[in-house]
Amino acid sequence: MLPRGRSRALGAAVLLLGLLLLVGLFLLGGDPWAEDVGGSCCHPTPPELPDGRPSRPASRDGASRPPRCQLLHVAIVCAGLNSSREVVTLVKSMLFYRKNPLHLHLVTDAVARSILEMLFRTWMVPALGVSFYDADQLKPHISWIPNKHYSGLYGLMKLVLLSVLPPGLAQVIVLDTDVTFAADIAELWALFADFSDKQVIGLVENQSDWYLGNLWKNHRPWPALGRGFNTGVILLWLDRLRHEGWEQMWQLTARRELLTQPATSLADQDIFNAVIKEHPGLVQSLPCVWNVQLSDHTLAERCYLEAADLKVIHWNSPKKLQVKNKDAEFFRNLYLTFLGYDGNLLRRELFGCPSQPPTGAEELQHSLAQLDEEDTCFEFRQQQLTMHRVHITFLPHKPPPPQPHDVTLVAQLSMDRLQMLEALCRHWPGPMSLALYLTDAEAQQFLHFVEASPVLSARQDVAYHVVYREGPLYPVNQLRNVALAQALTPYVFLSDIDFLPAHSLYDYLRASIEQLGLGGLRKAALVVPAFETLRYRFSFPRSKAELLDLLDAGALYTFSGRPTTSPMWWCHATVPATTLALWASAGTRWPIPWSWMHRSTSSWCCPRPSPSTCHTRQA
Amino acid sequence: MLPRGRSRALGAAVLLLGLLLLVGLFLLGGDPWAEDVGGSCCHPTPPELPDGRPSRPASRDGASRPPRCQLLHVAIVCAGLNSSREVVTLVKSMLFYRKNPLHLHLVTDAVARSILEMLFRTWMVPALGVSFYDADQLKPHISWIPNKHYSGLYGLMKLVLLSVLPPGLAQVIVLDTDVTFAADIAELWALFADFSDKQVIGLVENQSDWYLGNLWKNHRPWPALGRGFNTGVILLWLDRLRHEGWEQMWQLTARRELLTQPATSLADQDIFNAVIKEHPGLVQSLPCVWNVQLSDHTLAERCYLEAADLKVIHWNSPKKLQVKNKDAEFFRNLYLTFLGYDGNLLRRELFGCPSQPPTGAEELQHSLAQLDEEDTCFEFRQQQLTMHRVHITFLPHKPPPPQPHDVTLVAQLSMDRLQMLEALCRHWPGPMSLALYLTDAEAQQFLHFVEASPVLSARQDVAYHVVYREGPLYPVNQLRNVALAQALTPYVFLSDIDFLPAHSLYDYLRASIEQLGLGGLRKAALVVPAFETLRYRFSFPRSKAELLDLLDAGALYTFSGRPTTSPMWWCHATVPATTLALWASAGTRWPIPWSWMHRSTSSWCCPRPSPSTCHTRQA
Repeated sequence: MLPRGRSRALGAAVLLLGLLLLVGLFLLGGDPWAEDVGGSCCHPTPPELPDGRPSRPASRDGASRPPRCQLLHVAIVCAGLNSSREVVTLVKSMLFYRKNPLHLHLVTDAVARSILEMLFRTWMVPALGVSFYDADQLKPHISWIPNKHYSGLYGLMKLVLLSVLPPGLAQVIVLDTDVTFAADIAELWALFADFSDKQVIGLVENQSDWYLGNLWKNHRPWPALGRGFNTGVILLWLDRLRHEGWEQMWQLTARRELLTQPATSLADQDIFNAVIKEHPGLVQSLPCVWNVQLSDHTLAERCYLEAADLKVIHWNSPKKLQVKNKDAEFFRNLYLTFLGYDGNLLRRELFGCPSQPPTGAEELQHSLAQLDEEDTCFEFRQQQLTMHRVHITFLPHKPPPPQPHDVTLVAQLSMDRLQMLEALCRHWPGPMSLALYLTDAEAQQFLHFVEASPVLSARQDVAYHVVYREGPLYPVNQLRNVALAQALTPYVFLSDIDFLPAHSLYDYLRASIEQLGLGGLRKAALVVPAFETLRYRFSFPRSKAELLDLLDAGALYTFSGRPTTSPMWWCHATVPATTLALWASAGTRWPIPWSWMHRSTSSWCCPRPSPSTCHTRQA
Repeated sequence: MLPRGRSRALGAAVLLLGLLLLVGLFLLGGDPWAEDVGGSCCHPTPPELPDGRPSRPASRDGASRPPRCQLLHVAIVCAGLNSSREVVTLVKSMLFYRKNPLHLHLVTDAVARSILEMLFRTWMVPALGVSFYDADQLKPHISWIPNKHYSGLYGLMKLVLLSVLPPGLAQVIVLDTDVTFAADIAELWALFADFSDKQVIGLVENQSDWYLGNLWKNHRPWPALGRGFNTGVILLWLDRLRHEGWEQMWQLTARRELLTQPATSLADQDIFNAVIKEHPGLVQSLPCVWNVQLSDHTLAERCYLEAADLKVIHWNSPKKLQVKNKDAEFFRNLYLTFLGYDGNLLRRELFGCPSQPPTGAEELQHSLAQLDEEDTCFEFRQQQLTMHRVHITFLPHKPPPPQPHDVTLVAQLSMDRLQMLEALCRHWPGPMSLALYLTDAEAQQFLHFVEASPVLSARQDVAYHVVYREGPLYPVNQLRNVALAQALTPYVFLSDIDFLPAHSLYDYLRASIEQLGLGGLRKAALVVPAFETLRYRFSFPRSKAELLDLLDAGALYTFSGRPTTSPMWWCHATVPATTLALWASAGTRWPIPWSWMHRSTSSWCCPRPSPSTCHTRQA
């Protein structure tokens, strides 16, 4: 439905037997992409316990708030691709209800950092600061602890936040990636005021039976006070922790317990509970509504009386959204609200509080203000300045092993071209870097589309980068550049999404690069011919001979071979008939001199398409 | 992106020169569709006034709430198509934050009633009651008042709500259609508790200068207490109003003022203010955050200190969302949040409060529970039971004047077929009834698409009915039935959205109906042939001769004329070559006996499409 940058004929299925191959200067990045190693998010909560009622009743409405405009700090451990996607929904829910400036302290691995740095830089949310801390640095502090929890080492990192967070930071709220806010986080922050002088950590009681140790025969959980506490939502009084010698305290407890326990089962939660059992004066018990823990048999519902009470929902069952719970639909709808919520709407100014504008925001405002509304290109120039939110590597992805002649297919598309992906995957067995122009809701549809497709979900070497929609135009250059920047091979093959490469092209290009000795020597491009069909059902030619037959029969055209009023001909009209004849009779590649080829970064503009951004093709 | 009920070839542009015409039994409905007469929504607020500070500071957080599960009542006057669309955003924002059962009392004209009755019946929101009251009945009570406000008589109806609302109803919140909630309406309801014994009406002070009478030379507004009050949000204590003799009170004041005033300028607001000026003891002044009035020069920002204070935003400038205001972006984002919000997510159970389930909800639950998850058709049967939310006549529409042989084109589509609409409008100059399968966000994109198209926005005889998306399948039968039920002519022409009728078909069909004397006599169908092209660029034949030439040249096919693996052939394979030859040589219509024609209401089912819901076509 999007008006595309260049008009495309209705349902065009244009055929490509080859396109322009630019010998790019891409080298494999230094940061290897790792597989998802799981976020610090999940403490399974086992079934049934006799009394789920919290020690404090849920506070209702009368909650106090921190001072107006006070900056609130939030720390989250986030590692891997999937957690990086999950944490966005948490952040959206938090931003939706927040009325205070926030600072996020994100402890991440390299994968999550590269995704989230780009996301927050392009999101440009006012009154939101973000700092990153390297999870790898924390590993030595905790790697000595044997741990059975699936989140691995990352599941233990909340224990050692003190060693990475800024020394001046006095208080912080620590969250798992799988929580959703249904209230203003400032109300949670306000609970610091309830701490006694000795209390350093605020936690909600566990809404499961785990620590009571009666779940099965020989179930020997770590020690805990009663039912224990859940560490999905933590208020940490950092300067008091430093003063109390937290580091020594938890290590001492952990080492002692590990004399009799083989490992931690619930990661950091076991150790937090063991420390609290020993020093009960440290903990401030928070109202249970600030961590409503959902699992099949949770007693969470004894906590909230009605929807009005809910503050934070914790999807801590491994079943996540599929969890069976009598109020599950309500919780799911809340979650889905933020899953599909247009993140651009969260770019709203937090008026009433002075705050540093996001990086680049002032320049952007200035540039936008300079635009002339009377200019016929105004809409295009405005769109060119738009900062689109970008979520790179939206789905699981395994980068290809480094190979000196490897080629990544680079293309971009919107929702209405999604059905091209399967055909593309069948035609191109190599790595791909694809930019998708989607709304937040469409990004979820896309995720389901890939999961439902055996062809797509079998491919780990296709990286999907979501560029979030904003404005009425299709930002073709920005999309191409996002996909291009994420290509990890030394060569790229730039294509349009409605072109299908020959089945043999991936192999042929790699072989050509090797045979021609292009590597590293000079800038060069391999140019391959493109053809078009006006038919939407079409048997793809299996050879050059078949292709030439189709050309003769009029079932295929070169782009200059037929008269058209489409602006496309500007982009594809560079194949003289003589060149075609030469190609048709040629047995192999041959060198051609540089000619009318443009590689401009400037955007095309109305009223007539300029060839500057067309993919130039020559036979 | 939707998997369609029947697989359609990629970007298929299938050509129709005629299709099946069912001689339906549709007669023009008794309720004539009227043009939009404007809602009761808008009091323009003129610029600048010296002191916009409210008499009471905005309450923060400490607000009390009505008892848990107490039913809250809301009254809204809503007339015409556009107001019916606007009010949905208000309702969504209210439902998003509400924690109490609600009952809506809607005073509507016939147009709004038919739209909203269907909408709420199909929405099935738990713990939400809706009653309708006929605005026409109220007209005699107020038609004697000369009124310059653009909302016309509907703008005065809040004065006479007492005469339609149930006698037992003690209190009600009255809202304009152009307000958006940013907080729980229960907090507003709680302000009834602040009323003194004598107070009967709660209002927010005007955030404009209008009633100070200094806007221009000879500006003579109606009398008001100071800056006066805005009636976009009202707390009405109905039983006290009855006791005070409200009816006589306001009429007396109005008649007296009208001796010197030519008319009301701001409709009901002028009269409310005149009465309050005379009886200041009646009014309880509400915190200004409950009616933040947005206009270019409003002093509303003196009211709210920060975002946390905002409770209700009132788009009372005639510029609506285009209003210039330093915090306009914040307000717009809040509005856009609910504009595009998936209304299906508001179907969440209001747990904690027992409530009557929506009509049909229990039967639906029962039917869903009966389904066998192992059945290969499970997904289809589940979708068949899904109650889709339906918003009929989503955009301005003028029904065609009744004509005895008129024909409405009936079709259905999703977002990816939107570009067919212009071509369809060019080919079919008569009335159309189209069902669109969209998300809430897509419905807004669709609205902009129509507004931006000169072809579409010029057509008043095309009725668009939005069926909101839910589930993974395309409910083709439900969509067709919605469009069919809304056709207002005695005959309908059922088509698929990827068929284009011959330019002459509308006239030809009407002439045929008249010439054959079909009207009212018997059930009969006119059957017209359909053809297909595999080309996506195609010159539409201008005559039967041109069409036959294209058939000969192989540029067109009958649906049985080419081998295909598409399931479509089940639907279109009923044209024997002999019949085609007969049609090709025939000079006019001829009768054919009833044959393999199915008009079944049962849905088609996997794994193989059955012909039961195919549009059967015979040449």
